[in-house]
Amino acid sequence: MPEHIAVVGATGAVGREFIDLISHRNLASKKITLLASARSAGQKIKVGSTDCTVSELTAGSFAGVDLALFSAGGNISQKYAPAAVKAGAAVIDNSSAFRMDDNVPLVIPEINPQAAKKHRGIIANPNCSTIIMAMAVWPLHRVNPVTRMVVSTYQAASGAGAAAMHELETQSQDVLDGKDAKPQVLPFQVAFNLFNHNSAIDDSGYNTEEIKMIKETHKIFGDNSIRITATCVRVPVFRAHSESINLTFERPMTPDEARELLQNSRGVTVVDQRDPQHFPMPIEASGIDDCLVGRIRQDVSQPDGRGIDLFVCGDQIRKGAALNAIQIAELISA
Amino acid sequence: MPEHIAVVGATGAVGREFIDLISHRNLASKKITLLASARSAGQKIKVGSTDCTVSELTAGSFAGVDLALFSAGGNISQKYAPAAVKAGAAVIDNSSAFRMDDNVPLVIPEINPQAAKKHRGIIANPNCSTIIMAMAVWPLHRVNPVTRMVVSTYQAASGAGAAAMHELETQSQDVLDGKDAKPQVLPFQVAFNLFNHNSAIDDSGYNTEEIKMIKETHKIFGDNSIRITATCVRVPVFRAHSESINLTFERPMTPDEARELLQNSRGVTVVDQRDPQHFPMPIEASGIDDCLVGRIRQDVSQPDGRGIDLFVCGDQIRKGAALNAIQIAELISA
Repeated sequence: MPEHIAVVGATGAVGREFIDLISHRNLASKKITLLASARSAGQKIKVGSTDCTVSELTAGSFAGVDLALFSAGGNISQKYAPAAVKAGAAVIDNSSAFRMDDNVPLVIPEINPQAAKKHRGIIANPNCSTIIMAMAVWPLHRVNPVTRMVVSTYQAASGAGAAAMHELETQSQDVLDGKDAKPQVLPFQVAFNLFNHNSAIDDSGYNTEEIKMIKETHKIFGDNSIRITATCVRVPVFRAHSESINLTFERPMTPDEARELLQNSRGVTVVDQRDPQHFPMPIEASGIDDCLVGRIRQDVSQPDGRGIDLFVCGDQIRKGAALNAIQIAELISA
Repeated sequence: MPEHIAVVGATGAVGREFIDLISHRNLASKKITLLASARSAGQKIKVGSTDCTVSELTAGSFAGVDLALFSAGGNISQKYAPAAVKAGAAVIDNSSAFRMDDNVPLVIPEINPQAAKKHRGIIANPNCSTIIMAMAVWPLHRVNPVTRMVVSTYQAASGAGAAAMHELETQSQDVLDGKDAKPQVLPFQVAFNLFNHNSAIDDSGYNTEEIKMIKETHKIFGDNSIRITATCVRVPVFRAHSESINLTFERPMTPDEARELLQNSRGVTVVDQRDPQHFPMPIEASGIDDCLVGRIRQDVSQPDGRGIDLFVCGDQIRKGAALNAIQIAELISA
């Protein structure tokens, strides 16, 4: 087990979830160092029952650190993860900086735990939307390969950080008060509105978030042949992402078969009750570890029985980010 | 032109939009009768600058009426539309009661105006999600047939009526105030949440809203061969629906071709700017006539060039309901 854990980006939404999970799971360590930008240094954050002071992140912050959990954006990871590795720490990086690097494993412990063992210092944590989709699709794919996926997301404000969650709250109040919404953190009004994910769009017309879902799934599943299209949309929800997923399989797959496979999968809870209706919802997926999967049905547009539609919700901060990283840490510490 | 128009369901969200549109468009009539349930009778609603009193709907309400616009639910249409027809009125019905009736045309004026001419008294107005999808897809389908569609919706509260819009408002305030959400009109919390459309689910696992989108599109396009799957989701937005649509065409279709076809289509505005990003959003689609279409791109999961992804937003109350009905009225009155 790591004797000394550092959390980089300790004051962010994912950073705080790291601290919460470290306090409550089997990753007990003798020492924890909280790191953030100079602006946040000096803040006090409770770790278990102890007040810890946040220190400024520098290249020298990692002396004696065994495990460094990064969630402070790609630039910070690019700059400081190598320093942490040099100091002897294993880095689990929540940013996109190293995800597609051939020398860096991209890991969801329920799916490709073996990849984590091959790390050379850095292990990348996948994109939140990718993780939540993969949790719902992998249990099916592993017994009957998925040949094509069409996914549309309903992504929570938390994916853009704690400030975006706060903006959803204050902006909603402004709109209810009849005031104009003033987007500051997110590029467009998020209160009572939705918009396509605002990451950069390349010549293909896909935004970076969509491309991540495609490429990261290929890497995690170890299968570049799966044809995937994604449309990523931000919705006025606080912290759980939802995804509508249409699947085509190599061979026919029945809803009963899919439901049974998912019911027997770790990290997934099937919520698929038709009368009275009870299906996955973000408010029920928030604050829990499992991804909720439901609306499992035979796709009527694929009459050969090779199509399944389903709907998944997962806590973006937890399984979509911090929990998955902590599970990776537990995996390599075991 | 109709001399005497009756609005059934005059106090509802769509009813009020009917009245607003009648006042502002070319459907000037000498007389307007506002009808609603006994509970709403006696209310005063402004038509242009005149205060009109709402009367209780009865079988005798339609004497002398030339045109009756119904939007008070399927049961009311079933019960009273035949009486209106018997009294000599043309009925345009916004409910689902008659949509799949072989003797009733189901009309979107930009798509199948010729069908309206064959009516025998009743013309059905399609489901709101169907109209908004069809407005985006028809201009492409008519030159290169769509063989398959995968659609996921982001449906506004307005689809469940004025009371649901009010619930979104008051419930959001309750949640912001730290109180529990108490769903009364909608079956689940809608504030800062989303849920699969709560219409009844049949043995196939599809809900009624999804089945409407499939069957009504077949009828309007006059093509039962299009393979369609839909996932319908309610989101915390007031009055414009959004839809993520994945299309497969008979022959290759380029994004430029799709964009040009849509730019030259009535009732559609292309909003598809990549840098700085500007794509369809419900707040910009609300209160306008046109459906906004964007995110038009070649689907990378269909390497044969036959796939297009796009995103559409349309005002559920306006083009999704009242405006389309008024356009039908103008069509048969011309």
